This record gives sequence, C-alpha cells and structure tokens, in this order.
Amino acid sequence: MVGNLATTTPDFSLEDIPGTSGRIDILCRCINSAFVLSHGIRRDVDAYLILRGGGAAKTIHLRGRDLRHLNPDERTTAALLKKALALEAESRWTKSTPGIFVRAGDLADLSIFRGGTTYYLREDGSDHRGLPLARDGTFVLGDHIGLSEADEAILAGLGAEIVSVGPKSLHADHCIVLINNELDRREVPSHPAGGRERRTNGDE
Amino acid sequence: MVGNLATTTPDFSLEDIPGTSGRIDILCRCINSAFVLSHGIRRDVDAYLILRGGGAAKTIHLRGRDLRHLNPDERTTAALLKKALALEAESRWTKSTPGIFVRAGDLADLSIFRGGTTYYLREDGSDHRGLPLARDGTFVLGDHIGLSEADEAILAGLGAEIVSVGPKSLHADHCIVLINNELDRREVPSHPAGGRERRTNGDE
Repeated sequence: MVGNLATTTPDFSLEDIPGTSGRIDILCRCINSAFVLSHGIRRDVDAYLILRGGGAAKTIHLRGRDLRHLNPDERTTAALLKKALALEAESRWTKSTPGIFVRAGDLADLSIFRGGTTYYLREDGSDHRGLPLARDGTFVLGDHIGLSEADEAILAGLGAEIVSVGPKSLHADHCIVLINNELDRREVPSHPAGGRERRTNGDE
Repeated sequence: MVGNLATTTPDFSLEDIPGTSGRIDILCRCINSAFVLSHGIRRDVDAYLILRGGGAAKTIHLRGRDLRHLNPDERTTAALLKKALALEAESRWTKSTPGIFVRAGDLADLSIFRGGTTYYLREDGSDHRGLPLARDGTFVLGDHIGLSEADEAILAGLGAEIVSVGPKSLHADHCIVLINNELDRREVPSHPAGGRERRTNGDE
C-alpha cells in the first residue's frame, strides 16, 4: 500500500489525522480491512506500507502472525504507526510493537515480490473474481494519488497482473475487503459462500 | 444498522470514540462503507442507525441524496453524529446537517421496510452472490452484540431473507462493502466486473 503523502515522522496529531499526517487515515483503514475479523486478526496476512511524505521513504511492515494491540478504530491504529515512525529507520527492519516493523526504503526495495504472483489494483484491470488468485500473492494498491510511472515500471518488471474489483471506483480499504472475501471463498470451495465452517456476518 | 450500546447523547469524546460513545466508531465505519466512493458519495443509499445506548432509542437517518460534509475518516463522521445527537429527538424527523436527520425511535418504528425486500445479515444466511438482491432492498446489520430475539421477530414478521457474505465472520462495515459491490456488479451486468463505464480501483 503506497501512501504518497504519508508522513515519515511521528509529529502528526491524533486529533486531526487526515489534516496533519499526509492522510495516514487512509493507511489505517487499509490496515483494518487487511487484518480485522469479527473474532480476531487475519494471521496469514502481511501488509507493507510505503510512506513517502517527507525525506527518504519509510516502509512499515505489519505481520499478522504476531500483530498485537490492533483495534478496529483509526485512532488506535494511527497511534501504532506513530510509535513505529518515532524509531530510527535504518536499512534493516527495526521492531516497534509486536508484529510491527519499520525501515528506510521504498517500493523498489521490497523483497516480498519474489515469492508469488504480484497483483496491481487498477481501474482497467481484469475482474478479480474470474482470476486464479494466488493466496501467497502480493496485492499493490495506491492511495488517492495512485502509483507513479516509475512504480508502474517496477510492477511491470515483476510481471504484475492488473486487477479490478468491480465497476465503481473504490477506496483502497474497500478494495482490500473485496480481495480478502474472494480469497476466503476460495479457501472453502465446496460452497459459494463457504459452508464447511461456522459462518457469522454482520457483527463486530 | 443497530448500535446496541451506541450512546443517544452527544457527550462522548472525539479523542476516544470507542471508549466513550458505546462504540459509535462501528457506526462511523458502516457509514463510510455505505456511502464513500473514490470520487463522491453513493447518492442512492439511505442509512438508518439505531442507537440504543441510554434512555429511549434514537434513530439517525443519513440520506445519500443530499448528504454533505461526509469525509472518509471516523472522527469527522463521529462529529456529524454528535451534532445530530445534540438535537432534541422527537417522534418526527429533525434535520441536523444536510442529509442527516434524527428522531426518537427504534427498529420497530422504522417505516422503510414497506418498500422492497428486507435482508438480514447473519451467519447462517444464504450467499448474497447467489441471491436476486433488490436494489431497493433494505439490509439490516447488527453490531458486535448482534440483534435480539425481539429484533429477529420483527424481521421474521417482515419476511426478511437471511443472507451471508462469505465463509468468515466479518465486521458490519466490511459486510456493507461486499453488498455494495454485489449491487454495483448487477447494475452493469454485461461484464462480471462491469465494463460499460470507466473502472478505477485502489485509489482514494
């Protein structure tokens, strides 16, 4: 997830996240969509936030396997990111709170693309419902500004597939909800909406 | 959307919405999911919030057609609800800010169910992808506590269809994203992910 204006310093106000942080609120909502379930955290998800709003870019890694203190609300999540940004960002990962790591670096420095297929969420992509999505894939999303030509060149070099989630232009956090749901359904292929496990919806 | 603990008074803190408002943050995220698009507001959506956390229940109506001042972040949305809750709630609707109305009343007092089909989001429902969802339908969702037996009796009396959005238990706001996407796709049936209009994804 790329935050083109997202601040790389912790000196933003939790009382006005959209106005003082370069829209870290967008990243907070993406984190909620990526990890939060009704009764727990998606332990098999890793999220990488690229923050470019000041000086050298920083990357924050949230690792579902050992992520703690994550609440669904924006402010608590922003406070976790604030803590991570207060650390000295070096070329190696530094641990902030459990499951949250920070380092200096941009999209081009990520090594996560070596594993599975890379998907780039963009307006003119193929419908994700029809695609053979890999569970170990990496999904790249832009913020309200989107990705630059240089970013797109990196993704093209990786052979990224361009995918779309539907006919309307949606915010990145809504796209993540849709992709997670599609992957959930493929884990339980015997029924269109699952069926081999207890299903609950609409509660929090 | 039912907020079982959601405060009916404006005396909660925007600095700690989850801790002081009876989880109005849940309702704020539902509002974001229901209305927010990358480049605008879903004008054809109406949302009704039932707040039960203190004294007589109140209902807040957000009408997409003339909704204004809605930003995607939780705090701004909570501030709009705070304004609405500061008004005297009577049996008729009182306008707060543009597109936001408040009155005294609970689920049983809503007249919106007379129009189209009512859908109740619950764990054991049929997959929404396979259903002939009506665009003028009403979708009823609970919060982290869910609906009471009395609520369910009301919905049963309306002949509500019980629907589910997938194999995993999701928060109400994520369910709303999935339902909106399903309805979007049915508006543009010529292509699984639309295709008759410009498609953009992953930006905000």
